[in-house]
Amino acid sequence: MGTIQARMEAALQRFLPASETVPERLHRAMRYAVLGGGKRVRPLLAFAAGELTEADPARVEVVAAAVEMIHAYSLVHDDLPCMDNDVLRRGKRTCHVEFDEATALLAGDALQPLAFQILAEHVVADRPDAQIEMLKILAVASGSRGMAGGQAIDLACVGKRLSLPELEFMHIHKTGALIRAAVVLGARCGHGLDAKQLGRLEHYAKTVGLAFQVVDDVLDCDASTATLGKTAGKDAAHEKPTYVSILGLADARALAEELRAEAHAALSSFGATAVRLHDLADFIVLRKF
Amino acid sequence: MGTIQARMEAALQRFLPASETVPERLHRAMRYAVLGGGKRVRPLLAFAAGELTEADPARVEVVAAAVEMIHAYSLVHDDLPCMDNDVLRRGKRTCHVEFDEATALLAGDALQPLAFQILAEHVVADRPDAQIEMLKILAVASGSRGMAGGQAIDLACVGKRLSLPELEFMHIHKTGALIRAAVVLGARCGHGLDAKQLGRLEHYAKTVGLAFQVVDDVLDCDASTATLGKTAGKDAAHEKPTYVSILGLADARALAEELRAEAHAALSSFGATAVRLHDLADFIVLRKF
Repeated sequence: MGTIQARMEAALQRFLPASETVPERLHRAMRYAVLGGGKRVRPLLAFAAGELTEADPARVEVVAAAVEMIHAYSLVHDDLPCMDNDVLRRGKRTCHVEFDEATALLAGDALQPLAFQILAEHVVADRPDAQIEMLKILAVASGSRGMAGGQAIDLACVGKRLSLPELEFMHIHKTGALIRAAVVLGARCGHGLDAKQLGRLEHYAKTVGLAFQVVDDVLDCDASTATLGKTAGKDAAHEKPTYVSILGLADARALAEELRAEAHAALSSFGATAVRLHDLADFIVLRKF
Repeated sequence: MGTIQARMEAALQRFLPASETVPERLHRAMRYAVLGGGKRVRPLLAFAAGELTEADPARVEVVAAAVEMIHAYSLVHDDLPCMDNDVLRRGKRTCHVEFDEATALLAGDALQPLAFQILAEHVVADRPDAQIEMLKILAVASGSRGMAGGQAIDLACVGKRLSLPELEFMHIHKTGALIRAAVVLGARCGHGLDAKQLGRLEHYAKTVGLAFQVVDDVLDCDASTATLGKTAGKDAAHEKPTYVSILGLADARALAEELRAEAHAALSSFGATAVRLHDLADFIVLRKF
């Protein structure tokens, strides 16, 4: 495990209520859903973006943990029987299988306000009004015009033929919104970026977000359940449109490469401070799980 | 409908995304869950508490809407098949019956960040740091040591015999936390209260919150489904411990009266500015639905 992942694990451990705190079962389920798993891509992006603005890592840790809690809750709810009905996630039983449906529902419900709570109770910006803006960014990214909206669009797409722009629209919401929030919030922990720089950073975030999803689709059809730590081949089984189903495997792989190059290009004006963002685009596209 | 309820309905209409905004079905479900129903007890409490501190009603409207969105989402999730599996709420079909389970899950998931979003994007306090504190109050009240925690305790209690203090502990979380947040946030929209006054106000909030629940239990066993607009008698059917099952109907009624007197007493030092809070304690205890 890398240094940042280890740091995040410790931070999440600290921010989550202890298993012995009442209600114990709920807190155990919340910790089960968040700890000890995942690639922590969003935290890695937040820390890398923080390097652009010389952000204090203690601040970045808070925004990264908040984003990761939102991400973890979305996985718990996405795996529920009324959604994807999945039994395996991050190489472990899904939360509702390990506990029960009602507890998994509530664990997700309680992780969401915890994200806003930690973002409100730690100083993550130089001025309180800037911090309020960061709270708003996380709220919008999580909501009906962000991640939750993307889930709803995804639901509506099952069994339908989508065009490439329609598929992109769905992913820009479903996974893109929170990835963009991780990048933007990480950068906002440090000194300001001008509008032009922020625009480039957001373009980077959009591009790696899409690349992440394209690669997910390629891996879902290519890799095994054991490697992924989640059920492989489930998109096809659920009749979900994917980059692979629309473009074919070879063109989906080529698209991921194009997006990687586009992400790198978006960083060109930042120089050496963007090295980690650059490397993360590689990590996201070249990963095998 | 009273003036404040009408004002709240208009505010909630405005704060919720339009039905025509993509994803339409999700936004329709969110609007269905929030609009056109409910007693709006929490908003009434927020406005009444705002009168204590000469709060600008435009600010109170925002915090009341945020609290009501959290409340509405909790009802949607509470009615889901894996929780109470209820089909009737506020005289209408529950959200998952009107739409479907996945949409109801996501509507609740998306109402929660919308509450934090509106509280972040409108000025509700004189200073930004005071506003961050208000965001934190809402987050804590909604989370695992507040409302969501109360739901988990409630789940764990099904089929068990509880003592009166155990039942009270559950309700202080399940409904009390958000009622307290409504009162405290309403008051915080205006001038500051000193620690002693805030303590009295919180005692009032705790007392009316419990009174609300005692009366709910009495009505659940006393009134008809048509009057309540939700399924009557369901606590007994679900083997949930209630004030009536522990105390009996007569003693539960007497407890509601005691709590009403205690709530009134907590307000005594506030004088005329507390008239509406005083009257709301009456409304909460004397209501028939």
